[in-house]
Amino acid sequence: MHISILGAGGFLGRKLAARFARQGSLGARPISSLTLFDLAEPPPPPHPKFPVHTLAGDLTALPEAAIPPGTDIVVHLAAVVSAQAEADYDLGLKVNLHGTLRVIDACRRLAAAGGKPPRLVFTSSVASFSGGQDAVLADDARQIPANSYGAEKAAAELLLADASRRGFLDAVLLRLPTIVVRPGRPNRAASSFFSAILREPLLGLGTDLPVPDSFAAWLASPRRAVDWLIHAAWMDTAAMGLDRSVNPPGLRATVADMLAALEAVQPGAAALVRHAPDAEIAAIVGAWPAAFAPRRALALGFAPHEPLVEVVRAFVADDLAATRAERGLAA
Amino acid sequence: MHISILGAGGFLGRKLAARFARQGSLGARPISSLTLFDLAEPPPPPHPKFPVHTLAGDLTALPEAAIPPGTDIVVHLAAVVSAQAEADYDLGLKVNLHGTLRVIDACRRLAAAGGKPPRLVFTSSVASFSGGQDAVLADDARQIPANSYGAEKAAAELLLADASRRGFLDAVLLRLPTIVVRPGRPNRAASSFFSAILREPLLGLGTDLPVPDSFAAWLASPRRAVDWLIHAAWMDTAAMGLDRSVNPPGLRATVADMLAALEAVQPGAAALVRHAPDAEIAAIVGAWPAAFAPRRALALGFAPHEPLVEVVRAFVADDLAATRAERGLAA
Repeated sequence: MHISILGAGGFLGRKLAARFARQGSLGARPISSLTLFDLAEPPPPPHPKFPVHTLAGDLTALPEAAIPPGTDIVVHLAAVVSAQAEADYDLGLKVNLHGTLRVIDACRRLAAAGGKPPRLVFTSSVASFSGGQDAVLADDARQIPANSYGAEKAAAELLLADASRRGFLDAVLLRLPTIVVRPGRPNRAASSFFSAILREPLLGLGTDLPVPDSFAAWLASPRRAVDWLIHAAWMDTAAMGLDRSVNPPGLRATVADMLAALEAVQPGAAALVRHAPDAEIAAIVGAWPAAFAPRRALALGFAPHEPLVEVVRAFVADDLAATRAERGLAA
Repeated sequence: MHISILGAGGFLGRKLAARFARQGSLGARPISSLTLFDLAEPPPPPHPKFPVHTLAGDLTALPEAAIPPGTDIVVHLAAVVSAQAEADYDLGLKVNLHGTLRVIDACRRLAAAGGKPPRLVFTSSVASFSGGQDAVLADDARQIPANSYGAEKAAAELLLADASRRGFLDAVLLRLPTIVVRPGRPNRAASSFFSAILREPLLGLGTDLPVPDSFAAWLASPRRAVDWLIHAAWMDTAAMGLDRSVNPPGLRATVADMLAALEAVQPGAAALVRHAPDAEIAAIVGAWPAAFAPRRALALGFAPHEPLVEVVRAFVADDLAATRAERGLAA
């Protein structure tokens, strides 16, 4: 089985590649090769049991080698994130919309050449919805995005579902919750602080909290997100019909819940979080729904979420040392 | 007030231009000029009280003169229709998606140059929904298109709503029902037969009916569609918030209802309709919802629909002679 990951240099792509390398198979089928594509050449995962090809390039000029003939699975994670797409409209549209159209083209060429349409796993986002703090969205909730990133993701979902219906590819479109705890550094996602208020104190660093403690969000851990991506990569899509989009079973938590979990894992750490209200950030994340009722995802076999304390412990186990090293911080 | 119509050569664009010419104003404001753009140079409306500029070109290479500086209202009707977009994926995507992005660019340039963001009236479609014969869709129904045309229209809605939120334009996005009775000739819309079973018998011609008499559809007359476009062009959008899409108050009717209305207007005419089942056409239109509960549109001031017999009589009054002349048929 040949797999390509687009946006493989991001933390989710790196974790997914590492999981593939560790497992060596997907379901019962061995992985025969893995292609990793990103703007900068992505690092290969440690100790792969199969050949790994790494490749740098622009998504909107997608080289054929990024999705070579014989590709069974494409995991398309490449994106310009929310605050950046809001700040740079042209760049967001270019990558999030036109880049996705290039991915459709590439899959279509494989299918037209007589290959099986590849499974296409795409990460859409909770940011494609509005509804705000009191919302509990059902599976048939409409996407009324309050930011350009969300609009581009929702539009991409429509075009990918149509490409799937036409047989160019076989799509599973995951509207990922806000991922917590992201390793590494703060990024330009409006939701970056959700990870920072856990990660930075665990590194011994202060960090700003732009929203009040009562603010709620729909979250998922990197481990669970990788589980979902893997399930999406090999699940049977026959039961999905025309609707290829899934709201996976994340976790609703308030900032206070998150700080309590932080204190449970490392007492005193929450004191490093400074309240620093930011109206611009609050306006973006405040429009995202804080909860879903993800019945369909559970029926389709997506794993339910683990408790918040486990999420914090997993970051400490999986990512704290590497983040410290990456950022040149003393252990 | 300066108005541009894109896709002005189509029957709806021609009717809208004729209405503007007759009225000479929109709300209380006089129309100062009208620009008509289409692939082939559109005909100017009869007896305009203001200058009319006609212009031929490709939507995806939209000339600046199509939306000149100072434009207050853009009515974007240009599209590749449903059966054609299904037959030619690239063409549908090019016009329905990339063409609409060019319209956004043009409006954004006007707004960036210091102009007021133009009102942008866009025609989306009932074909962007699925649900089928038994559906009665609420205002918050999700678009899960079963055809490429519908997917492109729904994606365009998302991008236009986002452009509206960003202040590039001020959008009202109308999901038009199937328009009955279209004048002229059959076209490549999968829904073409809904008009043909009324128009062709009134011209004394036979026509094929690809679905059974019990088949229901969500319809609107050209007169009412023009009323809605005009309302969308000058209504106050403040009450719309982020959601710029409207399901206007169409009319649910079965083929049997339509043939009964035809018989009421011209006894014996329904005998010219031949049952000729067509699985491909039936599959496309069979996925479209047959009814909506359009509460929001009524609250926003969109006029409710007139009865079916009036629709047939209006075609006879407005379009029968011109259609006969256009097609070289004896009166």
